[in-house]
Amino acid sequence: MIIVLKPNPTDAQIEHVLERIAELGLTPHISRGVSRTIIGVIGDEQKLQAEPLQAIDGVEAVLPILKPFKLASREFHEADSVLEIKGVRVGGGHLAIIAGPCAIEGEAILFEIAERVKAAGANILRGGAFKPRTSPYSFQGLGEEGLRILQAAGDRFGMPTVSEVMDPRQVELVNRYADILQIGARNMQNFDLLREVGRTRKPVLLKRGMSATVKDLLMSAEYVLSEGNRQVILCERGVRSFEDSTRNMLDLSAVPNVKGQSHLPIIVDPSHATGRPDLIPAMALAAIAAGADGVHVEVHTCPEKALSDGPQALVPEQFARLMDQLRPLAELVGRTIDTCESVPV
Amino acid sequence: MIIVLKPNPTDAQIEHVLERIAELGLTPHISRGVSRTIIGVIGDEQKLQAEPLQAIDGVEAVLPILKPFKLASREFHEADSVLEIKGVRVGGGHLAIIAGPCAIEGEAILFEIAERVKAAGANILRGGAFKPRTSPYSFQGLGEEGLRILQAAGDRFGMPTVSEVMDPRQVELVNRYADILQIGARNMQNFDLLREVGRTRKPVLLKRGMSATVKDLLMSAEYVLSEGNRQVILCERGVRSFEDSTRNMLDLSAVPNVKGQSHLPIIVDPSHATGRPDLIPAMALAAIAAGADGVHVEVHTCPEKALSDGPQALVPEQFARLMDQLRPLAELVGRTIDTCESVPV
Amino acid sequence: MIIVLKPNPTDAQIEHVLERIAELGLTPHISRGVSRTIIGVIGDEQKLQAEPLQAIDGVEAVLPILKPFKLASREFHEADSVLEIKGVRVGGGHLAIIAGPCAIEGEAILFEIAERVKAAGANILRGGAFKPRTSPYSFQGLGEEGLRILQAAGDRFGMPTVSEVMDPRQVELVNRYADILQIGARNMQNFDLLREVGRTRKPVLLKRGMSATVKDLLMSAEYVLSEGNRQVILCERGVRSFEDSTRNMLDLSAVPNVKGQSHLPIIVDPSHATGRPDLIPAMALAAIAAGADGVHVEVHTCPEKALSDGPQALVPEQFARLMDQLRPLAELVGRTIDTCESVPV
Amino acid sequence: MIIVLKPNPTDAQIEHVLERIAELGLTPHISRGVSRTIIGVIGDEQKLQAEPLQAIDGVEAVLPILKPFKLASREFHEADSVLEIKGVRVGGGHLAIIAGPCAIEGEAILFEIAERVKAAGANILRGGAFKPRTSPYSFQGLGEEGLRILQAAGDRFGMPTVSEVMDPRQVELVNRYADILQIGARNMQNFDLLREVGRTRKPVLLKRGMSATVKDLLMSAEYVLSEGNRQVILCERGVRSFEDSTRNMLDLSAVPNVKGQSHLPIIVDPSHATGRPDLIPAMALAAIAAGADGVHVEVHTCPEKALSDGPQALVPEQFARLMDQLRPLAELVGRTIDTCESVPV
Repeated sequence: MIIVLKPNPTDAQIEHVLERIAELGLTPHISRGVSRTIIGVIGDEQKLQAEPLQAIDGVEAVLPILKPFKLASREFHEADSVLEIKGVRVGGGHLAIIAGPCAIEGEAILFEIAERVKAAGANILRGGAFKPRTSPYSFQGLGEEGLRILQAAGDRFGMPTVSEVMDPRQVELVNRYADILQIGARNMQNFDLLREVGRTRKPVLLKRGMSATVKDLLMSAEYVLSEGNRQVILCERGVRSFEDSTRNMLDLSAVPNVKGQSHLPIIVDPSHATGRPDLIPAMALAAIAAGADGVHVEVHTCPEKALSDGPQALVPEQFARLMDQLRPLAELVGRTIDTCESVPV
Repeated sequence: MIIVLKPNPTDAQIEHVLERIAELGLTPHISRGVSRTIIGVIGDEQKLQAEPLQAIDGVEAVLPILKPFKLASREFHEADSVLEIKGVRVGGGHLAIIAGPCAIEGEAILFEIAERVKAAGANILRGGAFKPRTSPYSFQGLGEEGLRILQAAGDRFGMPTVSEVMDPRQVELVNRYADILQIGARNMQNFDLLREVGRTRKPVLLKRGMSATVKDLLMSAEYVLSEGNRQVILCERGVRSFEDSTRNMLDLSAVPNVKGQSHLPIIVDPSHATGRPDLIPAMALAAIAAGADGVHVEVHTCPEKALSDGPQALVPEQFARLMDQLRPLAELVGRTIDTCESVPV
Repeated sequence: MIIVLKPNPTDAQIEHVLERIAELGLTPHISRGVSRTIIGVIGDEQKLQAEPLQAIDGVEAVLPILKPFKLASREFHEADSVLEIKGVRVGGGHLAIIAGPCAIEGEAILFEIAERVKAAGANILRGGAFKPRTSPYSFQGLGEEGLRILQAAGDRFGMPTVSEVMDPRQVELVNRYADILQIGARNMQNFDLLREVGRTRKPVLLKRGMSATVKDLLMSAEYVLSEGNRQVILCERGVRSFEDSTRNMLDLSAVPNVKGQSHLPIIVDPSHATGRPDLIPAMALAAIAAGADGVHVEVHTCPEKALSDGPQALVPEQFARLMDQLRPLAELVGRTIDTCESVPV
Repeated sequence: MIIVLKPNPTDAQIEHVLERIAELGLTPHISRGVSRTIIGVIGDEQKLQAEPLQAIDGVEAVLPILKPFKLASREFHEADSVLEIKGVRVGGGHLAIIAGPCAIEGEAILFEIAERVKAAGANILRGGAFKPRTSPYSFQGLGEEGLRILQAAGDRFGMPTVSEVMDPRQVELVNRYADILQIGARNMQNFDLLREVGRTRKPVLLKRGMSATVKDLLMSAEYVLSEGNRQVILCERGVRSFEDSTRNMLDLSAVPNVKGQSHLPIIVDPSHATGRPDLIPAMALAAIAAGADGVHVEVHTCPEKALSDGPQALVPEQFARLMDQLRPLAELVGRTIDTCESVPV
């Protein structure tokens, strides 16, 4: 941590800063220059972050040096983390191809979608039973009945499943049915919820918040990891921006950016990022080329009758065409796509 | 709702759209032009919003006309809503002056701060017992012990109190001690939490999310209102932007923007918006000039030792100077500042 | 400037950084800590900024300490700069009330608008003769004929005038007719244009770019100042954001933010910031309460027939009502509004 | 164009809107509904856009339907535009691989860089002779001497060249030496400059502004096209955002987004977008996978001594490794990379 003092600090001000640092059991290094005096403090930055040194009279800026996350960092765990969910590996060269409808709407339709995405090459089935909707008057999901249907579809077609959990009180229930617990963008900083899924032993799919920095995303992963659950998959799904022709702005640079700092797998959701079926396939391919550990694509057999987010879903034919392009690309960049069958469970 | 078709639609496409509208029991108006065909549907837009018409083949855009919120709208309730909390009115010309530390740290320090802000003119006391912190390693609040201290300080100095609730499971507890339940920016779209505070009969202070539009904010208020709790105070507290010299970007235009559409009171939090004590007073005054129903200011007797957000707190002397400027401005624009004593309880 | 090295730097890497600093005639201070080594360089930061030290192998980050602008800074000129344009002072407690149409459309209409805004209390007349339009097919301004009309209206009603210059080749022409040269938001980083207006001796009204930080704005002012023209008025006019119900997002905190760092006057343009007549008056009042040195408001007698930006203009009656509210507020905060008559020219 | 009236419009208001439309020689279609009245106007929207109908009393919103650009649109020119610059085709399946230093610093260094990037597979050489620098005190480019060196390097190594033009007065000069005229992000809405390069017959590389929407970018292309120059290459180079770990946020979805609406080629600049050499290769590959018509990469033999933007440049070895990955990817997606030699001039 580096403390920059305002121009012409008094001796009393300097003394006061040095004292506060000493109170914390740390050793300061002072450098007096012509136009500025700076104080370097190298040591347990975690301890200093709790101290609002910026509020001290005469301090102009406090510049942190160390990263504020630990368990999520590459320094802590140098190799890529590889998760294995019912035989499907994610990370370290293995791609998660997550597909399915936004919301679970009924057994017949989910089974049909599951069969189609499995045939096209998806290896994980998604579907929401609890839906975060902007309007209280919109369809809010089927709840436990939906989870039961999702589990049945996963079993029937040999795919592990992922479903969103929105409320700490739902964690036990969703944990009973789904193979991966999803934290949605709106809940990325719902810290009590992060702690609760951190106490399970299920993989957590953590989506980036709509205005979260990459550092914020890693700090939220740290909440889950710090509870003892080391199975976190990050998901870039676009952030809010001024561009009004797409739903969000997909920040693909987050993929290599995360990989440089963290061992956690990161996948990309081009469906929520763009909100436009005409852009989804290009962005899914770009994600794989950028090094993502998978994609998350909404697929619906009849988008115009979907109860949630229909306009951004691919139809199964479009998804199959995307997979036909994605497979050779994955091979070119040395990635494999596991299926339940392809790996000994 | 207006449905714009792509250029040169086929008769079958047009027919299909008209059928879907008819299935919903509504009547379409079709206009065929040289370069585009549009279909107007005027009726129960709520019903149509649930239908992803945009996903229909041949549809270019679906443009909503009606606002998606109802109970929060001026059309529903034309006069300004005025809340009364232990004799302190908020809205309709009455200002909430909310002040206090970011986090409740102990009894002695909270009592000292409460006494100072009350003397300077604050009429509501704030303090966090549950703190949403970016890092799991930061101070997370005193919990119930903090709430007990807050209630005692409010009783002692004659101020209603406000404290944040982060988890649906905390609502009953916070409701027992605090006079106003705060929903923080990170939880503005934590819909289960919104419903839970909507089931209490306590006023709710709802802060705008970091990348929420004004419409999103009003939709979140609608969640609370739709559960039967009509006491919602909105709070503009800055949004994320590219400007890196302030913590957030304060969107003061949200104040008249909300007031044109909604009857709910809206206050401004210049502390979180700017993160800089040198900017807080100017922004608090600007908020009142813009028509805000109050301000929310963090005050701490020793910011450099605060356990949370110290650098953005005013010291009591700064807060008193701000109030000396704010009072004549409030008078000029015809606003009153109630205190527990000034109104018969 | 502080150079933070990556974890575990080699001796060769450290040596290399120290050599580069020495080559520049500066003295480094090295601090080796448990987890990081940092090198502080205090001296002529201007010299170092030209050196891309961040590209050196082993360097993690280079953190500047000093501000990159000089002539625009409070350190360079401690007192508020006060400009005087035909007897109208701007800055140091004197407000510029700039009003007029977006574009000059003809003599009769400009004279009518000028008479009305003058009567209501405006002290500077605005009008565009060269218009930056997003579409090449939109009205582009009357050019020299427009400038002639503007000058005549200013003379007739006793108001100095301001008009935009978009092209270095227009500077001589606009300089011949207008009293203040406006640089629009889209040209804030048109550096050749900045230099060209810097070579005149006319005041420059420099508008903040749509995604410019406060520092960027001050750097652009530095371009003008460094050519010898010390008369710069800054203008906050909103920045691009995700909020879709206003044209831009007005960043009023830029006002005290600039004032803390710079001696230059700063005014606010609520017309372009909001694009909505229903929000303009509240934002103009908030600007004055925040400490702005004036406002810039578009006024048109018939917005629905305006050739440019009609929907964001106030009609003269609305502007007069705004001035009736603004005058007592200005008095309360100790500001005066000069007119050509009120000050000896 | 659709005009939505406010609730309960008076007959006089409706009549007034209909009259204004009739004055423009167009025919309105009125639809009266329970809660709203809307008026559809289908015809020459270009004409209506000049009319600020939104300012009419009783009008709530005016929703455009048609796109405001014409020459840039796919409707105007259905097939991909393919440019040919000294034998190097760009667009329609042919990739531009543009590489070189940010600024031209001298003959020896530019020749060395040119030789290295050519050997690695670049087919167009870049280098700035006029540099838009945030600070007036930074290196501003070598001017004509730089252009002369660039031309010599292009001739020597068989590569067409691209260089930025910042000022309408420089167009003639840059046109004399460079094969492609670059408009930088800061000048994307410098309309006089756009018109000036539109009057040349040289290809124009138009970079997206830092807060420009995709529509804004296409409107700026329209300025160039409307002057008769049909050779425009668009360039996505990242936009401003709240993410503070990258220089800008690369919006790769702009690639398929542009391609759906326009026939113009679009390339991607991962150097300015990320500002980080560790992220550039992944983003360059992602760009090709997303369908971009090329990439624009800064390369310098000694980034730490570069006079401009050194920290974001790749060294030649890194660029060569990137090309080794990019070539098979281009082949997989059916793209070719021309060189001066490979195509008959």
